[in-house]
Amino acid sequence: MNGAESLVQTAVRAGYDICFANPGTTEMPLVAAIDSVPGLRPVLGLFEGACTGAADGYARIAGRPALVLLHLAPGLANGLANLHNARRARTSMVVVIGEHASWHLPHDPPLAGDIEGLARAISPTAWVTTCSDAKTVARDFAAADRAAREQPGRLCFLIVPADAQWDAADAAAEPLESTAPSTVSDAVRDRAARTLRDGGASAALWLGGATLGERGVLAAGRIAAATGCRLLTGSFPACSARGGALPTVERLPYFPEPAASCVESLERVVLVEAEEPVTFFGYPKVPSQVLGEGCAREALAGLDEDGVGALEALADALDAPPAAPAGTARPESPSGRLDPVTFSRAVASVQPEGAIVVDEALTSSTGYWEAAAAAPRYDHLCITGGAIGMGIPAALGAALAAPERPVLSLQADGSGLYTLQGLWSQAREGLNVTTVVCSNRSYRILEVELSRSGESVGESARAFTELRRPPIDWCALARGFGVPSERVDRAEALCESIRRAVAEEGPHLIEAEIV
Amino acid sequence: MNGAESLVQTAVRAGYDICFANPGTTEMPLVAAIDSVPGLRPVLGLFEGACTGAADGYARIAGRPALVLLHLAPGLANGLANLHNARRARTSMVVVIGEHASWHLPHDPPLAGDIEGLARAISPTAWVTTCSDAKTVARDFAAADRAAREQPGRLCFLIVPADAQWDAADAAAEPLESTAPSTVSDAVRDRAARTLRDGGASAALWLGGATLGERGVLAAGRIAAATGCRLLTGSFPACSARGGALPTVERLPYFPEPAASCVESLERVVLVEAEEPVTFFGYPKVPSQVLGEGCAREALAGLDEDGVGALEALADALDAPPAAPAGTARPESPSGRLDPVTFSRAVASVQPEGAIVVDEALTSSTGYWEAAAAAPRYDHLCITGGAIGMGIPAALGAALAAPERPVLSLQADGSGLYTLQGLWSQAREGLNVTTVVCSNRSYRILEVELSRSGESVGESARAFTELRRPPIDWCALARGFGVPSERVDRAEALCESIRRAVAEEGPHLIEAEIV
Repeated sequence: MNGAESLVQTAVRAGYDICFANPGTTEMPLVAAIDSVPGLRPVLGLFEGACTGAADGYARIAGRPALVLLHLAPGLANGLANLHNARRARTSMVVVIGEHASWHLPHDPPLAGDIEGLARAISPTAWVTTCSDAKTVARDFAAADRAAREQPGRLCFLIVPADAQWDAADAAAEPLESTAPSTVSDAVRDRAARTLRDGGASAALWLGGATLGERGVLAAGRIAAATGCRLLTGSFPACSARGGALPTVERLPYFPEPAASCVESLERVVLVEAEEPVTFFGYPKVPSQVLGEGCAREALAGLDEDGVGALEALADALDAPPAAPAGTARPESPSGRLDPVTFSRAVASVQPEGAIVVDEALTSSTGYWEAAAAAPRYDHLCITGGAIGMGIPAALGAALAAPERPVLSLQADGSGLYTLQGLWSQAREGLNVTTVVCSNRSYRILEVELSRSGESVGESARAFTELRRPPIDWCALARGFGVPSERVDRAEALCESIRRAVAEEGPHLIEAEIV
Repeated sequence: MNGAESLVQTAVRAGYDICFANPGTTEMPLVAAIDSVPGLRPVLGLFEGACTGAADGYARIAGRPALVLLHLAPGLANGLANLHNARRARTSMVVVIGEHASWHLPHDPPLAGDIEGLARAISPTAWVTTCSDAKTVARDFAAADRAAREQPGRLCFLIVPADAQWDAADAAAEPLESTAPSTVSDAVRDRAARTLRDGGASAALWLGGATLGERGVLAAGRIAAATGCRLLTGSFPACSARGGALPTVERLPYFPEPAASCVESLERVVLVEAEEPVTFFGYPKVPSQVLGEGCAREALAGLDEDGVGALEALADALDAPPAAPAGTARPESPSGRLDPVTFSRAVASVQPEGAIVVDEALTSSTGYWEAAAAAPRYDHLCITGGAIGMGIPAALGAALAAPERPVLSLQADGSGLYTLQGLWSQAREGLNVTTVVCSNRSYRILEVELSRSGESVGESARAFTELRRPPIDWCALARGFGVPSERVDRAEALCESIRRAVAEEGPHLIEAEIV
């Protein structure tokens, strides 16, 4: 057994079943080990951002860490943007990176680079270790896996020099015990109960992390039913259980002014696995903090505590009734030209039971969260860190985590172009992913930002914000990667196309022209 | 005048004429300034790697630093792989990155990240500065520009918080004097003369950096004519003047065994703006250093010295005759199925006078350097740092630096997929770039590496190395980005297609099926 085989065997024992990879020469022993040690499904990405974004989507749906294999410093560099999103989603991940042989590295060969520096720069809380030799590889992987399973989710980078992969190792390692998230005390729970009871509609439970899953939302809904408090989450929640019999959670608007209106009446906020909301960008004379100074804040559960357990205990302590499902009905299928409103309603009107919806449609899906509140039960994944190009890869990973569920990938056109290579992996793996590209042929958000700032938009600014010269043909791009595609510009056609695509096996792409 | 305008005006005064950019919200004042201050041509990349790779290609051909504008930490992250190549090419570049407003950053908004850490991790010699306020922006840019113009080429990162862009500034700054590369002493020159005269064919001039340009190669050729020494360069020279009346320079083979054979007979090597060659990767029981222990090394010029001047002085001191042009004739156009041999000959047989050839065809173009030695005068750009995905962007940048010259972009299919978005910018800018994708539908180099290592290739290894399931349709991908395309599988058709594409305006893509 060599070091690479000891790593793969340790990974399989720890429950990893997929390796999202874009390997190179310094990972060949690991590639060979994935051949010789059964248990890891190899999923190739044609670009590293497709691998890390897929791992993020996989981990959010599977509820356990994902495994990624990348090539040296430039390979990691290409995966960093979606690792940034994963960090902001508090996704757990083990990223294995091959390094030059230990005796070769001091010669500074052309592909040498500062892998540890990149890892630490993308996440200040990253776990980063370089294996010293083949005999430590298995133990180091087990330590990385434990770190990944600890709360809150964490990016764990294990750098394995080529000689540590090909030299002889002793044995695989057993998974290590990880500490469970700590339980919230009765005193903190009782304080939150008083706050919410006293506050009524002027109080809110602010949900984050695992509390947006089914158990957390149901418990929060019971608390809302008992106290009249509002349920809120940030602008970009990582993974939210929605629809069906679940109560709805309000999502903070993106721009500071509607965000301020949304929270204006709040006097008390109870944070649960959530940080206090701040505006996405800073604007002149606009405060960074969304909550007013007069609004009292307290935490029911910190990021490393058991927020779901705390919510359930709080609901029980309040003797709370069952949660009320979202009051609104699912929208009827709309008709007419597609715009952000009809697009959002069209998707919500046809999305199937059990869907996973990956939402990176940005300006085109601003109304989707509300429109889909009473859709059949689904899970909603957002881009979390603002590093655009998360959608197509995350849809790939989500589909691999739940192959029996249809995935709807709502994708802004500008953003989708950062990691379009993920379409090929969707085709190779034969996954039921329906990508709807919202083709408005611009970086619409930047056009909005320019008009917000009062700048007149001249020729150069247009050159940086519009994507019409030449127009991008998403149908051709999809076919280039082996994904069947079609173009629609009306809501009726979009509804029909989504229904058909979901019903057929394999991936599809619909280019939806949006005004 | 605000800080952004002071930056743009300073850049224009310093001679920058293009801004390769993928901006976001934190760069909007700079985008507006590019509108209001004339002089910078805005070139949009749909992915940051297209911008940094284009800047590298531009700087190599223009012979002066390039300017790039990126968005926060994830935007920089997406550009890092091609910055790695630029660093290894010793390309000079000023990379401007917007940062959150100074008072917003401490709130750790979702897109916040360690921009300085990423910059330092990609290049240990990087110049990195974050502007403290609007009044320092112009001076800081002038300092970045000076650092970029110093030898050897350097990546210079200027991080500009949004408030330093929109707050009031005083004035633009004048360009700063940069120190010229130091002249090589007569003693060092005379020692090199003795070494080469004594060594004859067992000695070599090892050329790097600027010495591979026309003046350097002509001087080196004179020295070879006078002393009988060989002319050599590393496996991946950044920018080489070739063909026409120029003498040829041998290029070190990629794999260690042929590289060792190539230098086996060398007893003395004189390095000129070059580092000692090391193997690209480490292999068990293979030395990292290519030159034997018995081979004496000396430097005629270090990386920060004037190697071209030193070569010319040395040629004069030797009273050397004119350089002899490459002895071989340009190959006839071949016929038959395309393989690496016929592909290389086909390109060399038809490439037009004055072409710029960007070579990232890897395993498909191993014979091209030799085949093109006696082609009409051209410049040859290589991927330098092994971070694949440099070719399409570098061709974009090279074409912008020399719009009157045809650009031939020889592109491996696997590598091209990392930054295919650059095709769109080629179309938008209407550039005469002919991309030939060598479609062997595999990561061929990894297949070779696996067979070198003696590993049997099982199903998982195949999953990580072959790109046939589904096949990638490069013609469709090109059309998706607005680039006309066609597919060929025979050498005659390739020759004809290249001739036609070069003669027509605007970009073209030829998918060459290679066995």
